Amino acid sequence: MSDIKKLVNDPLKVADELLDGLVEAYDGDCEKVGRRSIVKTSIPAGKVALLVGGGSGHEPIYHGLVGKNLADGAACGDIFAAPSPDIVFEATEAVNKGNGVLYLYGNYAGDVMNFDMGAELAEEEDIDVRTVLIWDDVCSAPPTEKKNRRGIAGLVPVVKLVGAASQTAQSLDELEATAKKAVLQTRSVGVSMAPGSIPASGKPTFEIAENEIGLGMGIHGEPGVKEIPMTTADELTPMMLDLVFEDFEKDEEVAELSAGDEIVLLVNSLGATTMMECLICLRKAKEILNARGIVVRDTIVGPLVTCQEMAGISFSVTRLDDELRTLWDMPCESVCYSKMQS
Amino acid sequence: MSDIKKLVNDPLKVADELLDGLVEAYDGDCEKVGRRSIVKTSIPAGKVALLVGGGSGHEPIYHGLVGKNLADGAACGDIFAAPSPDIVFEATEAVNKGNGVLYLYGNYAGDVMNFDMGAELAEEEDIDVRTVLIWDDVCSAPPTEKKNRRGIAGLVPVVKLVGAASQTAQSLDELEATAKKAVLQTRSVGVSMAPGSIPASGKPTFEIAENEIGLGMGIHGEPGVKEIPMTTADELTPMMLDLVFEDFEKDEEVAELSAGDEIVLLVNSLGATTMMECLICLRKAKEILNARGIVVRDTIVGPLVTCQEMAGISFSVTRLDDELRTLWDMPCESVCYSKMQS
Repeated sequence: MSDIKKLVNDPLKVADELLDGLVEAYDGDCEKVGRRSIVKTSIPAGKVALLVGGGSGHEPIYHGLVGKNLADGAACGDIFAAPSPDIVFEATEAVNKGNGVLYLYGNYAGDVMNFDMGAELAEEEDIDVRTVLIWDDVCSAPPTEKKNRRGIAGLVPVVKLVGAASQTAQSLDELEATAKKAVLQTRSVGVSMAPGSIPASGKPTFEIAENEIGLGMGIHGEPGVKEIPMTTADELTPMMLDLVFEDFEKDEEVAELSAGDEIVLLVNSLGATTMMECLICLRKAKEILNARGIVVRDTIVGPLVTCQEMAGISFSVTRLDDELRTLWDMPCESVCYSKMQS
Repeated sequence: MSDIKKLVNDPLKVADELLDGLVEAYDGDCEKVGRRSIVKTSIPAGKVALLVGGGSGHEPIYHGLVGKNLADGAACGDIFAAPSPDIVFEATEAVNKGNGVLYLYGNYAGDVMNFDMGAELAEEEDIDVRTVLIWDDVCSAPPTEKKNRRGIAGLVPVVKLVGAASQTAQSLDELEATAKKAVLQTRSVGVSMAPGSIPASGKPTFEIAENEIGLGMGIHGEPGVKEIPMTTADELTPMMLDLVFEDFEKDEEVAELSAGDEIVLLVNSLGATTMMECLICLRKAKEILNARGIVVRDTIVGPLVTCQEMAGISFSVTRLDDELRTLWDMPCESVCYSKMQS
């Protein structure tokens, strides 16, 4: 068993027990559906529904992004595992209000396979399903191969925007278009300094040398750009942001990030990295963004996309146009992220 | 230096640099004032002001509780140290709008001494100051000696309520009365499983055996009730909540917690304890509260009152009456805690 003392019961039941707790955290606004989904108790008839989901163990996402002006439901897998097709189907049935269901989740092979199979089951029941994948991790593949990129912390601004859009979207086509735009304008770079551990085994999720940082490493320890010597916040922050700037520059599908562009900036902790560290990095990030004339409309800081007690941080940038700005300014509320009207 | 890889620059400057980052996180709603305070940029003339504060290193509190319908400012100390009297005075001058300033902070000797000296400096400038101490940690002294209790995670619901009250309070007397009531109705019990580390030295904040939990241990590792063997979420949660129930029962200044009472429940992580664990404990806590007929109006879960990468958890209960319920239901927004209108 683990060196890490974790407050759990049966380590094989953590995904189910945490979902029960999550439902309680919503104080009646959400309920458990089927094997392991969480769904809002009140979704208006005819609403174009938004379903998110993925593996458990990364709380507060994805299932903590169900909420007011956010997702209608989440299909939850076991720890670090995709939800099974029947879980996806059960969630789809529960959120469907007759106007279609948009699946919006991170691009991982297991998730894609199971959500696609869930979609097939749903289509047999005449539920119209569309899928938009989130692939914001610029270190996981070049801009010409965005389909091979992973989804990391950029999912938070993306789900926030699409959740807002889903409140008034008239059709699945309309919501899909907004979701594609939000994904296209969202880019992230992460680093990791220490692994989390798998609750059932206590084993670390990956290994990294004591004096190194995994630049571009994924949230489960997937390989990134390279390993670099441990450094300071002020050295690392520009290295990370440069990768974001470069990606906007190299990608022919988007304009480069330039003076006057308005963005949402998320500084995410992977778990054990303290808010203190995130804020120190944010201080440097804002200096760099200010120097480039990029306008930060809203900053989010905190452990939103985690991997147990993993140490690491990521920056996510979402560029706003008029439509996305209006959506961003809507209030929202959930266990993961809440804001008042801007 | 530490085994813990921390993303900082000069370890002796972390309190200042994180404050700069925090100001950036507010996107123009707050500014740095004096040596190390954060203050809202727009406080209405004549408002009864609310000032919080304490040591840094516990982010997102206290300084992350400055915000919309929350505190007007925070006086920030160095890591785990009280703000100096001049910092308190500078913050007081900045938030003062001619109708007095309420100091609301956790009961620690260093903070009390320095805030009191700051108040003296303010009074020399004819600023009316009143102090309400937060002492929610029931394991730190018996109910007859509440003045000796420490302030822990219960500060979050207390500041939320008093921040809401401060928007319409007509006088410092009125705000002080609400603050005293909110403190009186708030009780917390914490446990710790592993220490955080001091950024400047890398040294752990305390020691605890590999197989033990510090029941009632404070957020800096102050002694609690006793050390118990490491156990499960379902064993520990009732032990912790029983201490809360007992305290309401034994304290002659409040009624016992009984069926029909409405509360806010906060499940706080001290840092490295995952949201997964908090949610599993919450699941059990709600079962216990439901069995007693106690109504949870709102649940908060997350790492809000931390001590670096310390592992541990606390439960805080705030009982609402009609006044506090109305205040609770107001929306609020800050780096630490946000909610939409209930």
